[in-house]
Amino acid sequence: MSTAHVRIADIARHDGQTVTLAGWLYNLRKSGKICFPILRDGSGMIQCVALKANLPEETFETLKSLTQESSVKITGKVRAEHRAAGGYELDVESCEILQRVPEETPYPITPKEHGIDFLMDHRHLWLRSRRQFAIGKVRHEVIKATRDYFDDNGFTLVDCPIFTPAACEGTTTLFEVDYFEDEKVYLTQSGQLYNEANAMAFGKVYCFGPTFRAEKSKTRRHLTEFWMVEPEMAYATLDDVKTLAEGLICFITQRVLANRRAELAVLERDVSKLAAITGPFPRISYDEAVEILRRKGSAIEWGSDFGGTDETLLAEEFARPVLVEKYPAQVKAFYFQPDAERPELALGVDMIAPEGYGEIIGGGQRIHDYNLLLQRIEEHHLPKEAFEWYLDLRRYGSVPHAGFGMGIERCVAWMCGLEHIRETIAYPRMLYRTRP
Amino acid sequence: MSTAHVRIADIARHDGQTVTLAGWLYNLRKSGKICFPILRDGSGMIQCVALKANLPEETFETLKSLTQESSVKITGKVRAEHRAAGGYELDVESCEILQRVPEETPYPITPKEHGIDFLMDHRHLWLRSRRQFAIGKVRHEVIKATRDYFDDNGFTLVDCPIFTPAACEGTTTLFEVDYFEDEKVYLTQSGQLYNEANAMAFGKVYCFGPTFRAEKSKTRRHLTEFWMVEPEMAYATLDDVKTLAEGLICFITQRVLANRRAELAVLERDVSKLAAITGPFPRISYDEAVEILRRKGSAIEWGSDFGGTDETLLAEEFARPVLVEKYPAQVKAFYFQPDAERPELALGVDMIAPEGYGEIIGGGQRIHDYNLLLQRIEEHHLPKEAFEWYLDLRRYGSVPHAGFGMGIERCVAWMCGLEHIRETIAYPRMLYRTRP
Repeated sequence: MSTAHVRIADIARHDGQTVTLAGWLYNLRKSGKICFPILRDGSGMIQCVALKANLPEETFETLKSLTQESSVKITGKVRAEHRAAGGYELDVESCEILQRVPEETPYPITPKEHGIDFLMDHRHLWLRSRRQFAIGKVRHEVIKATRDYFDDNGFTLVDCPIFTPAACEGTTTLFEVDYFEDEKVYLTQSGQLYNEANAMAFGKVYCFGPTFRAEKSKTRRHLTEFWMVEPEMAYATLDDVKTLAEGLICFITQRVLANRRAELAVLERDVSKLAAITGPFPRISYDEAVEILRRKGSAIEWGSDFGGTDETLLAEEFARPVLVEKYPAQVKAFYFQPDAERPELALGVDMIAPEGYGEIIGGGQRIHDYNLLLQRIEEHHLPKEAFEWYLDLRRYGSVPHAGFGMGIERCVAWMCGLEHIRETIAYPRMLYRTRP
Repeated sequence: MSTAHVRIADIARHDGQTVTLAGWLYNLRKSGKICFPILRDGSGMIQCVALKANLPEETFETLKSLTQESSVKITGKVRAEHRAAGGYELDVESCEILQRVPEETPYPITPKEHGIDFLMDHRHLWLRSRRQFAIGKVRHEVIKATRDYFDDNGFTLVDCPIFTPAACEGTTTLFEVDYFEDEKVYLTQSGQLYNEANAMAFGKVYCFGPTFRAEKSKTRRHLTEFWMVEPEMAYATLDDVKTLAEGLICFITQRVLANRRAELAVLERDVSKLAAITGPFPRISYDEAVEILRRKGSAIEWGSDFGGTDETLLAEEFARPVLVEKYPAQVKAFYFQPDAERPELALGVDMIAPEGYGEIIGGGQRIHDYNLLLQRIEEHHLPKEAFEWYLDLRRYGSVPHAGFGMGIERCVAWMCGLEHIRETIAYPRMLYRTRP
């Protein structure tokens, strides 16, 4: 592209050369005879060195009085400096200010501590901070790794609709949209039912898009708008889901470790915890999980679903993600294939991340028998008519099939070691947060 | 992955071996002593050859009576056959039916012609047909190429919110969502305003997600839900947008030509038209475009926007996409940077695809001056308060910046040579279509 400036990320290629950088003032240290503007340009950061003795007085004074986040082009000579974070510094020769942030109306986010509401109100600016920038880069990496994993393993991306006429699981947590002429549609909570149709056409598919849940919960793990990747495979069983899910998580972790070390360091992430994420992951049954929980003092009864606290307790037992399989059918959705030996169990599997990050993957094998699926739809009092197209998949060439869903934000929170999921997406949407 | 069957796409690796394929019966030719089941498995199609003389009678009869779209595993020996589409055939040794579609309730989509409403009502099955499958594969390729292009050129993916409090362009075409406790939010029409904030943090960014337009139009170019990719660059101008847009289209076309020849053949696409898509693209001004249109008999007046017919007329002049730049400010949104020499012009550019596919890219340079942007917000009677965060981007380190948006479905329609955009997405949403 025709840009006269050099990106900080490419600085090593210009060692010893005079280049122009274009960015924003991140920080400034100064004394009477020297000042050190730190420039960020979205590709990286670099410390510039401006010596009063080497510069026209006006240039030095301009640099010295630069305010935080002013936009500036700085020209200077690239010098290797092993003590610098990026390995280079820039010896300033000249500078050009594009827009100077006035002293009387300074950049609102200062190095001092700010409350979370203030930061979220200024999310459009907060993204520029070193920590939020690092999270954004890890998110990019997680998404790219996820897509590459499926693309490289023979999956076809088939986008599922956002506007859906029927609910996948329940209706109380659906967002309703006014369509045309009094029609109502709902925002998708999962592409799975459509994925099943797509898998019968393309064999192995995935969808990857935003999903929506109108949950009135204010936990650190919930957003009303979040991104989910959902693969689905024809001619596949619960075992294939476990293998695929484990492979995906290992691949993502390796990519993040390989390409985002610097960002993980900014986030003070204990990378040894990520390096430990190698297959095979421990696999336990729901029965065993209940035993472990009771041994650890939980009052959970067989037949209940796990809550966030149970997941955290369970995860304490393992340094790696743990796959919990074969849940009581009553805690799983209507479409789960029952276990052949113990039909009261559903062939579902959840992956629980270590370090208290909870369930990051949920999936399993779907019912492929027409009569059984119809029976389940009736048992769950679902409107048969709305599911006729879904039943068609069992009328015309039904095969065993299976898949899962992974929430991107939870995965990013885990990779980054974040307390709260709200920092994993640029503009989080929560119960009381729809701006900016 | 632990699958005992071989994918048809991998058949060349098994030449001479006995393998099991798992798929669906696409078609069947038969005579008394031989039958040719064509199997599809989502990765490809292959013709199987079953000789009565070589098989147990039951196996031959089973194959001969297979119904369309029945699910079946066929075991046989792979044999190179240069006359076959994929280069191989399978000499059948045995078969196992998973689910036989009953003769009395046959697969609804037969080789005969069906009306579009019937096909759209059966979209979950229609996707299995050769033509829809090919379109799905091209769509996958276009999206992968698009993402690779940005990822490989230093862009960071930053997802923009779907729930937005304010409108980017007008409010009449917005879908309204009931949020919690009487709050209203709107579904995004563009991530651009957010992209501008993100570009100030990450330098070069793109968002890629579904966007929504509540337009009551029933044209062959409109969907209410469609996917859009939108790059945005800090320290960039109109020229950078033209370069980036041209590079993207060339890259996508090359990838489609390199990897999807077979699918283009199924679609009977004239690939010479795609092979002609090489840079540099012709670049004309709005003024020149008006001249061309008037010469061709259009009644267009200087100052009006182009309609679909104008775009088609204009495209007739060029075998390649044409970039039209510098539109009258009044036909463009409030945020366009004015031309320095002729301030009545906006620094916007549209790319019009050849062969009547219309505008596939629209973008330009944004206003970076605080006072000018404020003036435009007032001139357009937009609520200043809702744009305070957007104005912040001009208060704190404003720089020239630019970007564009490309609708994925229009691009796929063009690559595939489709009449109507509705076939470019798995589950199109239109004025009268929200199912399945």
